[in-house]
Amino acid sequence: MSEKVTIATVARHARVSRQTVSNVLNAPHIVREETRQRVQEAIAVLGYRANQAARQMRTGRSRLIAVRIEPTRDGINGSVLDRFLHGLTETADAAGYRVMLYTAGDDDQEIATYDDLLGAYDLDAFVLTGTKHGDPRTAWLADRGVPFVTFGRPWDDPESHPWVDVDNADGTAQATRRLLDTGHRRIAFIGWPEGSGVGDDRRTGWRTTLAAAGLDTDLHRATWDGIAEGERAMRDLLHLAEPPTAVVCASDSLALGALQAVGTAAPQVAVVGFDDTPVAAAVGLTSVSQPLAAAAARCVELLTGVLDGTHQTDPHVLLQPALVLRHTA
Amino acid sequence: MSEKVTIATVARHARVSRQTVSNVLNAPHIVREETRQRVQEAIAVLGYRANQAARQMRTGRSRLIAVRIEPTRDGINGSVLDRFLHGLTETADAAGYRVMLYTAGDDDQEIATYDDLLGAYDLDAFVLTGTKHGDPRTAWLADRGVPFVTFGRPWDDPESHPWVDVDNADGTAQATRRLLDTGHRRIAFIGWPEGSGVGDDRRTGWRTTLAAAGLDTDLHRATWDGIAEGERAMRDLLHLAEPPTAVVCASDSLALGALQAVGTAAPQVAVVGFDDTPVAAAVGLTSVSQPLAAAAARCVELLTGVLDGTHQTDPHVLLQPALVLRHTA
Repeated sequence: MSEKVTIATVARHARVSRQTVSNVLNAPHIVREETRQRVQEAIAVLGYRANQAARQMRTGRSRLIAVRIEPTRDGINGSVLDRFLHGLTETADAAGYRVMLYTAGDDDQEIATYDDLLGAYDLDAFVLTGTKHGDPRTAWLADRGVPFVTFGRPWDDPESHPWVDVDNADGTAQATRRLLDTGHRRIAFIGWPEGSGVGDDRRTGWRTTLAAAGLDTDLHRATWDGIAEGERAMRDLLHLAEPPTAVVCASDSLALGALQAVGTAAPQVAVVGFDDTPVAAAVGLTSVSQPLAAAAARCVELLTGVLDGTHQTDPHVLLQPALVLRHTA
Repeated sequence: MSEKVTIATVARHARVSRQTVSNVLNAPHIVREETRQRVQEAIAVLGYRANQAARQMRTGRSRLIAVRIEPTRDGINGSVLDRFLHGLTETADAAGYRVMLYTAGDDDQEIATYDDLLGAYDLDAFVLTGTKHGDPRTAWLADRGVPFVTFGRPWDDPESHPWVDVDNADGTAQATRRLLDTGHRRIAFIGWPEGSGVGDDRRTGWRTTLAAAGLDTDLHRATWDGIAEGERAMRDLLHLAEPPTAVVCASDSLALGALQAVGTAAPQVAVVGFDDTPVAAAVGLTSVSQPLAAAAARCVELLTGVLDGTHQTDPHVLLQPALVLRHTA
């Protein structure tokens, strides 16, 4: 057999996805018995061997976990991943693991960095953040049998690998219900352009809650994230013939912009943000809070389970956010 | 000779400090020729050998740098070290180094962690933050010949090891001059209890600038850091028979509290914070900005200089902060 045997070869032979093969190698307990046997037979027949770096990772046990650190942006949304990183480092420390950081400008760079890191260090696993539709990073790692867990769902196939996420739709649903309960009927939404899993999910929570209450779901705007962008979208909404009396925003940055557009108008328009950043606390913005320390702890739990080969009751963890009430709603 | 030869033994024999011995081992170019020869003779006579872990660090070149990540606090001041960490990871990446994180509750725990890390990983060096008077961490590392650089001065002896810092006194001096230039004469200061290098330095900048202008330096309060604490201190100042018309604060947290105490009083009391956090930007707070990306870059530069044995023109780097003007002053 001259062709190099890869996970893709095994997957074709066993008539399963590449991610299922990766799961059989790294998290066999999440794969059905019958499927697992078929994959293991294919591995034996084809003589598949996980690549050197990946095998080292499973056997060497460096107790090193790698995670990407994002470039500093406006310091508002970035604080979410910073808090996740703090929680990850603390929980990992307690479990005997250390966290190594890397940077990457885009997916291609990130994948190139995986290659570098796997060549240079005996990494045990990766924690990925910011998952998206058709994520090439998870496919790359799964192809090579490298253990990983994501903070963020695999948006295309929820079963494809271990993940922890926060129920974004539930967060905006809570925010919308709060506004309904306090008498609002014209409730707008300012979010991001369609196509991001997180952004679409946050819009869905607002829309389904309004629809269930028999109310109009026309009042929404999509824009890039940022304070200026939020202000512009809110001004636009306020110029409507029948403007909203309240707005749910997909981020605290957008909400801060909305607040600035609202200004000191009376009656005050209610504003709810998302992520409960330090800025929200400082300006009294009601906001949806993600349980970031818990999310980090569950990521470490899933990873150690995968690395130690101990079984997890559920390798897909969806955590509930909480609405933090302050002055703006 | 039955006694174990340590850096302390070498230091006693050569009649220099332990840190000078450490410098001779790790950054010989910052030690005067005559002193260096005396130390090298003592090393030869006594048969001193740096310990295994430390020697491995200098020869193995893992290209791994360790830095502590702080526990999440109010998210305001923590953002300063987070921004430093982002800068550090980015610059280190560019220089071919990776950053490993660890946590520690106090100095003893941090020193125990050094020991763990040096045993478990081939670390090249440490970056320390939050230096203070009589810092036991730098003494521990210097004793063992472990390369390190600090973000923050060694407050007891500025020559003792390579460091990068921001001129805090210059920051509050700039803030105070701005207030003088805009007509204020009763300018207060809210800072931290005496004894912290950074806090004392920030108070000094305010005091010397006022004194140079022939003005009163009695209007100051010391309190723990926090929004509530800043508010309390400001209320206290506003209750004076002759209250201040402006206040310089040692942090954005204190400044936010001061702003809340000032409320909508007319004439408005001017407020300046320190650290130019995202919260300051969001609420329009004038604040002193530390050049954190530059500080991180200089730390990596100093470290790679130490590790590569290339000379640094100056292993003690004091960077100038900049006042960012917004609505509050």
